[in-house]
Amino acid sequence: MKTPPIDNLQIPASEARALRADARRNVERLIAAARVAFAAEGSNAPLDDIARAAGVGSGTLYRHFPTRLALVEAVYRDSVERLCAEGDRLAATETPAAALVDWLRGFVTVVSEKRGLAAALSDEGRAQSLFGECHAMINAAGSALLDRAKDAGAIRPEVPLADLLKMAKAFALAAETSPEGPALAERLLALSMDGLRPRTS
Amino acid sequence: MKTPPIDNLQIPASEARALRADARRNVERLIAAARVAFAAEGSNAPLDDIARAAGVGSGTLYRHFPTRLALVEAVYRDSVERLCAEGDRLAATETPAAALVDWLRGFVTVVSEKRGLAAALSDEGRAQSLFGECHAMINAAGSALLDRAKDAGAIRPEVPLADLLKMAKAFALAAETSPEGPALAERLLALSMDGLRPRTS
Repeated sequence: MKTPPIDNLQIPASEARALRADARRNVERLIAAARVAFAAEGSNAPLDDIARAAGVGSGTLYRHFPTRLALVEAVYRDSVERLCAEGDRLAATETPAAALVDWLRGFVTVVSEKRGLAAALSDEGRAQSLFGECHAMINAAGSALLDRAKDAGAIRPEVPLADLLKMAKAFALAAETSPEGPALAERLLALSMDGLRPRTS
Repeated sequence: MKTPPIDNLQIPASEARALRADARRNVERLIAAARVAFAAEGSNAPLDDIARAAGVGSGTLYRHFPTRLALVEAVYRDSVERLCAEGDRLAATETPAAALVDWLRGFVTVVSEKRGLAAALSDEGRAQSLFGECHAMINAAGSALLDRAKDAGAIRPEVPLADLLKMAKAFALAAETSPEGPALAERLLALSMDGLRPRTS
């Protein structure tokens, strides 16, 4: 006998909504706890510890994420989605130049996180499709901010998004092996924005 | 019985000089051949092949470089010395800004080479002293070029040499893992020199 989908159960609609909201909250908590654990211990951090930190049972973790890979992918995809949502928020609240720089700073963080997860993701062919999808999301968000900054005359029109992202990625890598950490990436990014040549006033 | 130093042998001074010139030429050839072999095959490239490529016998290689580490160190030190000599040449022949950028391009190459040799060098405490010495040479050459560029108004006075080198190093690292190779480092360097913000004319 097949288990009927949750929506077909004879339970009131309001209760079904509450159950779905509860499940969504658990997923969010699990992803947040996994992000912290993966950053601290690498992508092999014990799953039971992650469930405990999220305040849910291990069964709940395995029901939402049947494999470690599923959880690692969810953490990475969630970071990219948050970065892209952050792009919209920055565009609405900051000057074009500040929005772009702040967003690139967030991109640096996502790049570092992705490198930490890469060992867990890299074996799988489906990682390529995940990376492709996330890459497209990042390109769309970055293009919107870069175009806005160019329209405002805050960025030279000939600077391509690809080079901007490669530059930010280079600084993210450098920061990883530096005792200065992320502060180095931020400083080099600021230096590149202004350029090394003096500005004629 | 101790072997007397070559200068005390009863051979004419002119012949001794020719012998020394010959030895120096062999050392130069061995370093050049080792650089090519290490770049192509890593620092475990067969020493006999290096001797053959340099046109000398294996005995000559082992007499000048008793260990692989000695040869690896010599290649790295030679690269740094050439980079510093190149700084003097560039200062004498190019504009301050062009000299600095060209020199940073050479620095990028040395950084990449050093990373290739790092596995062979890293175990040894003496590598730290070699790195310290080379670092001091690079700082002296870089400072001279940067100060000259600042004096000429070609670089903002507040840009520190350390950040300039960290930036070039970040681009060198990025270029290593990019299909574009060194061209990426050069493009990002040029982008950083001008800055991403438009210049008011």
